[in-house]
Amino acid sequence: MSRWKPDARGRLEKAALELYNDKGFDATTVAEIAARAEVTERTFYRHFGDKREVLFQRNALADVLAHATATAADHLAPLEVIARALAEAAPVFEERAELVRQRQAVIAANPELQERELAKLASLVSTLAHALRARGLEATTAALAAEIGIAAFKVAVERWIDDPGRHTLAQHIRGTLDAARHLTAPVEHAAATDEGSFTGRQNVA
Amino acid sequence: MSRWKPDARGRLEKAALELYNDKGFDATTVAEIAARAEVTERTFYRHFGDKREVLFQRNALADVLAHATATAADHLAPLEVIARALAEAAPVFEERAELVRQRQAVIAANPELQERELAKLASLVSTLAHALRARGLEATTAALAAEIGIAAFKVAVERWIDDPGRHTLAQHIRGTLDAARHLTAPVEHAAATDEGSFTGRQNVA
Repeated sequence: MSRWKPDARGRLEKAALELYNDKGFDATTVAEIAARAEVTERTFYRHFGDKREVLFQRNALADVLAHATATAADHLAPLEVIARALAEAAPVFEERAELVRQRQAVIAANPELQERELAKLASLVSTLAHALRARGLEATTAALAAEIGIAAFKVAVERWIDDPGRHTLAQHIRGTLDAARHLTAPVEHAAATDEGSFTGRQNVA
Repeated sequence: MSRWKPDARGRLEKAALELYNDKGFDATTVAEIAARAEVTERTFYRHFGDKREVLFQRNALADVLAHATATAADHLAPLEVIARALAEAAPVFEERAELVRQRQAVIAANPELQERELAKLASLVSTLAHALRARGLEATTAALAAEIGIAAFKVAVERWIDDPGRHTLAQHIRGTLDAARHLTAPVEHAAATDEGSFTGRQNVA
């Protein structure tokens, strides 16, 4: 523990996620995380406020979405604006695929963490709705578009995690938003796959 | 407080929502709720486990959604199934418009209650996704449709509350789901109103 190694933060995150998956989030202590990462507890607390913060770090997603939405071309449909904004944010996740997969598993196993995750997603919806209103979209339409966008993003991340290496997250985001569009069409019951083989019939009133 | 009056539960709910709005949720005590409703605290606890349960009562919504989804005609598009299921559930809310309005205001003012509300909505998404899978819809498509449906429901309830008497909740649900369909179209920036004046152009790849 005395020899300095680079990237203490990265090792702490990796150690924490492994322990949360192995032992459960509640049963894991900061001391165990620090030991596995070969740093002191004090180093842990230099990087994270507590155990939960490892899972809910401030990341660039909200900023990337807000900026991409603000700067998208004027003529684009709201869901197209969102699709492009989410695609811009995708590399943040792509680069950390294994950590994202572990994080999802930890959260899925713990109702309190699920509530926190829902709050985080709701905050992304607000950010996105705000950026869409700033483009001139009426408030409830902006709220609806943002809800659909983040819902599609959530589903896309789950699809991507279950689909090791076949498609990028950006492709899953695009596919999921296309699926959202086609949900208005009457579908055969064999229905859609994640490769976009939808019936394609439109049922627009 | 000695004379028996009918509908203690209804009076408790009304008293609680008034107090939560006037004083704030945290500052309100069960003793105050009981006093305003002219019942004993013991009567309060016969009806509700705690202060929070007044806001998060078990209601028929999940059951109505599940049943309506299970029994909808085979050929209907997923979002049409959801639109009809939500319309069936609307009277539960219509009959309690003022209480729903007060409840939303209390929740909007309290982050902890917001987290609880998000969890309740997420549980509705699960119920609906389960019912859609039972109709033969592929799992992530069902999840996506359920997310969009509940997001539309949430936005429709907000629109309805802000629109005293002009449209029914069922009409707002229909309008919001139509709006969701039209969000794929490039829109003029004056954009959509809650009366459905969308551009109507479709931009399906």
